Amino acid sequence: MSTDTAILVNGERNTAVHVFDRGFQYGDGVFETIAVYQGSPLLWEQHIERLTFGARRLNIPVPDPAVLRHEAEKLCDGNARAVLKLILTRGMSTRGYSPHTADHPTRVLIRSAWPDYPNSAFHEGVRVRICHTRLGHNPQLAGIKHLNRLEQVLARAEWGSEYAEGLMCDQEGFVIEGTMSNIFSVKNGVLRTPDVTRCGVEGVMRAMVLQAARKLQVPCEIGTLAVTELESATELFLTNSLIGVWPIRQLQDKDYIVGPITHTIQDAIRDAHCFNRY
Amino acid sequence: MSTDTAILVNGERNTAVHVFDRGFQYGDGVFETIAVYQGSPLLWEQHIERLTFGARRLNIPVPDPAVLRHEAEKLCDGNARAVLKLILTRGMSTRGYSPHTADHPTRVLIRSAWPDYPNSAFHEGVRVRICHTRLGHNPQLAGIKHLNRLEQVLARAEWGSEYAEGLMCDQEGFVIEGTMSNIFSVKNGVLRTPDVTRCGVEGVMRAMVLQAARKLQVPCEIGTLAVTELESATELFLTNSLIGVWPIRQLQDKDYIVGPITHTIQDAIRDAHCFNRY
Repeated sequence: MSTDTAILVNGERNTAVHVFDRGFQYGDGVFETIAVYQGSPLLWEQHIERLTFGARRLNIPVPDPAVLRHEAEKLCDGNARAVLKLILTRGMSTRGYSPHTADHPTRVLIRSAWPDYPNSAFHEGVRVRICHTRLGHNPQLAGIKHLNRLEQVLARAEWGSEYAEGLMCDQEGFVIEGTMSNIFSVKNGVLRTPDVTRCGVEGVMRAMVLQAARKLQVPCEIGTLAVTELESATELFLTNSLIGVWPIRQLQDKDYIVGPITHTIQDAIRDAHCFNRY
Repeated sequence: MSTDTAILVNGERNTAVHVFDRGFQYGDGVFETIAVYQGSPLLWEQHIERLTFGARRLNIPVPDPAVLRHEAEKLCDGNARAVLKLILTRGMSTRGYSPHTADHPTRVLIRSAWPDYPNSAFHEGVRVRICHTRLGHNPQLAGIKHLNRLEQVLARAEWGSEYAEGLMCDQEGFVIEGTMSNIFSVKNGVLRTPDVTRCGVEGVMRAMVLQAARKLQVPCEIGTLAVTELESATELFLTNSLIGVWPIRQLQDKDYIVGPITHTIQDAIRDAHCFNRY
């Protein structure tokens, strides 16, 4: 099993979902994007915990984690490196927004090829822009990795391949996250990442970094992050479950170094989770 | 062709879409819900115009309207009354939010049975609640009938069958719309409906009502609508392409009459568009 892509829909080899699936009709579901290394999904417990957190808030029943794990391993067996995307929707229902008739969630597991990220992204950092597309505030959906991703699509449409990532602000102009990553800044030795209780995704790697910082006794704050604070920061980095920790070497026209705290966090994440062993 | 449901995916009889369709992955698309009467989709031009408006803002190419019309007629032929849902997604793409590799939009047409709305809804009005779930502001997505509908799903999950509709407020507490309808109020002879430039959907029937009001010289305002303004209104009604105009007879615990302006608007809509001929 080593073709580029393989898909399981409710445990069966399939490539399609029903048109009436609420994932298609309304984006009524959640997802996880997981790094696969030597046939195993990494940070599995954390991903299942976050999936469960989101699904509970949307009142979607979560399948038995043992079943998900079994299917994930079946799909990823023999793959040295791959990406596993796990989608959980509320399932099929009759016409209308009411979720009351949907009682069989749909689970879709997709194994894709590992993206060809350049080694330099991890070591030397990446170029990043600030997107015009902004995130709307909705505390009820904030933090959840749900399937309503139009804001990210519109933000990502703003550039081609000239940047590795784009940062998104909320309606008030505060920086919240990247289209596919969370953001951290360092200033005066203090690590800072935006609060995601009004919008944004509570990234699994973001939580790992916060945990590592606490263990390493790096002072860390969660709060608002203004664009001007990014400009005065000495280090910036991005996180997600695939990239691990990527330093930002250029934001808009300003250059940044790959600094000591970024290195420390990269080492901590690498030691614990066999990431980015380039 | 008269079974309850029939589906065309890109012109072919089918019930499924690919897991990689961006409608399923991200809610990356738009839709229309259209009333079908004697085999014909009603307000067709207006629906295609709104679909085009939304698709253009998301930069999704719109299929030839003649093709859509042909498929709609094929699907609805022989149906005295039905509902036609037209979904247009950006199509399939490889992994990631970037829309640049998606160049074949997916069109899905679904014909469903006409809902068994009671006659009393049109004549005597309906019971309505105010939802706890609020709408997030995003001017970039506001007005568009896009596939990111989690807010509506969560709002609709708040009740069962005890109400016909629930009103949704924005993050500031202003009333914007129902989960599946737009709202109008009448006070001192002035018709008022919320502005939908920060959130909400620019309903086709909402536009018809505004047009009818102008023609009938009923003074009409588009602006903010506070919950207290609903309470002091003398008439309230809901609009969408299936229900036409439904008076609200009770909002939370307060009763309303089906007043003269509501009747006038109902007559205008009925005369022009063969709606609600119970």
